[in-house]
Amino acid sequence: MISKNRIKLLSSLKVKKYRDKNQLTILEGYRLIEQAINFNADIINVWLCPEAIDSNPMFIKNLNFKNISYDLINNEDLKKISGTEHSQGVIAEVDISKYITKVNDKVSDNLVVLDGISDPGNLGTIFRTCAWYGIKSVVLTNNTVDPFNFKCIRSGMGAHFYLQKIIINNTQDIIKFLKDNDYDVMCADLKGIKISEVKTSSHWAMIFGSEAHGVSLDFDTFNKVTIPGKQSIESLNVSVAAGIILDRLVNKY
Amino acid sequence: MISKNRIKLLSSLKVKKYRDKNQLTILEGYRLIEQAINFNADIINVWLCPEAIDSNPMFIKNLNFKNISYDLINNEDLKKISGTEHSQGVIAEVDISKYITKVNDKVSDNLVVLDGISDPGNLGTIFRTCAWYGIKSVVLTNNTVDPFNFKCIRSGMGAHFYLQKIIINNTQDIIKFLKDNDYDVMCADLKGIKISEVKTSSHWAMIFGSEAHGVSLDFDTFNKVTIPGKQSIESLNVSVAAGIILDRLVNKY
Repeated sequence: MISKNRIKLLSSLKVKKYRDKNQLTILEGYRLIEQAINFNADIINVWLCPEAIDSNPMFIKNLNFKNISYDLINNEDLKKISGTEHSQGVIAEVDISKYITKVNDKVSDNLVVLDGISDPGNLGTIFRTCAWYGIKSVVLTNNTVDPFNFKCIRSGMGAHFYLQKIIINNTQDIIKFLKDNDYDVMCADLKGIKISEVKTSSHWAMIFGSEAHGVSLDFDTFNKVTIPGKQSIESLNVSVAAGIILDRLVNKY
Repeated sequence: MISKNRIKLLSSLKVKKYRDKNQLTILEGYRLIEQAINFNADIINVWLCPEAIDSNPMFIKNLNFKNISYDLINNEDLKKISGTEHSQGVIAEVDISKYITKVNDKVSDNLVVLDGISDPGNLGTIFRTCAWYGIKSVVLTNNTVDPFNFKCIRSGMGAHFYLQKIIINNTQDIIKFLKDNDYDVMCADLKGIKISEVKTSSHWAMIFGSEAHGVSLDFDTFNKVTIPGKQSIESLNVSVAAGIILDRLVNKY
């Protein structure tokens, strides 16, 4: 059974300060936890309500097989920790220390840079799209929402743990890093070269800006690419725009 | 100043039953209301907090120019009506009676069918993408979330009012309608013809299924199309998948 101290610690993880301090976050629900297990996330413990233990023998079997420890929690304590209204009665405590970095030697050839994304649902959805297309490194500017926010993790559907590294840094250091490593850098914008006409090398970085303001002026020296539309509405949602652009860059057919 | 009865009516619109009964919904924030005005939404009245009236002369000027009535509301009353925590101090009451229909004679050549989408954020985001690509008719199965849900309207960013018609019907009638009108019908699926290889007529309908279960078996006789990925993660978010597929169908280059 879970201890009072552990409940207190896990309940605090809704707040970024305590996630940073403890290098922990919470996963909720079977599918998300199973995806994280598939990607070898550092799961410290899984906590299940009594009903959940009984009703999901395959899940328990998998935990045993993977040597992941689990324990009981009552519904009331789970509610204190959970960020959702309708819990499935299962949460996992995960160590996130290996994912976040400032600098990185081993970054992938295709890089997604997210500049000031503020909605955790959008950020998680973009991570999910990156995983779909096999993009393993993501760079976030300091003013981007915390990727280990519960809502971001939910919308990521396990993609966080597919990513090898989430680089978080200031804009100037990111620009230096992109130039030093000879990335073919592009910004998504409302004006620019049509994405279908872009000829890239295999070593590219694509920057997506915030929901309200787009890519910040600091990145203004890089080439701009755009998604043709009917101009009937101001813009596309940023996670949709990221999907369309990454599809065109990765699936070159 | 707003009456007590009006506050009661507008506060009730958070619930679908009262939106349906009164054929009204609420828009919140300047950008959304301005977009709705651009698309000639039937705005009955705009309600502003005293601070909002003083700080946005251009917005007020536009309301006067477009002959849209507006009135004061205090912050406390606005909070009762609003669905957001951080209001900009402005809401609009909109008549939605002309948007929803069961059958439709004048539907567009390109049609998006949404089968059981349950997340209002996803539904609104797909509407926004439809507007971006000039798709004017959307068909929803009965079990899809209500498009005039406040959250759906927020994520639609005004796209609801760009759409000429939102058709809501049961699956059998939708299938009959698609066949009777000779649409070239396709379902988005995890398996199928690669979307880039699909050759469509200019008269197509594209079906997207629910977040949890995909397109329902009722639509199983139609062709399936898919977005190639690295199979590293189960699926893409449905609004991202819709963006990628619509981009390939509309922007044929």
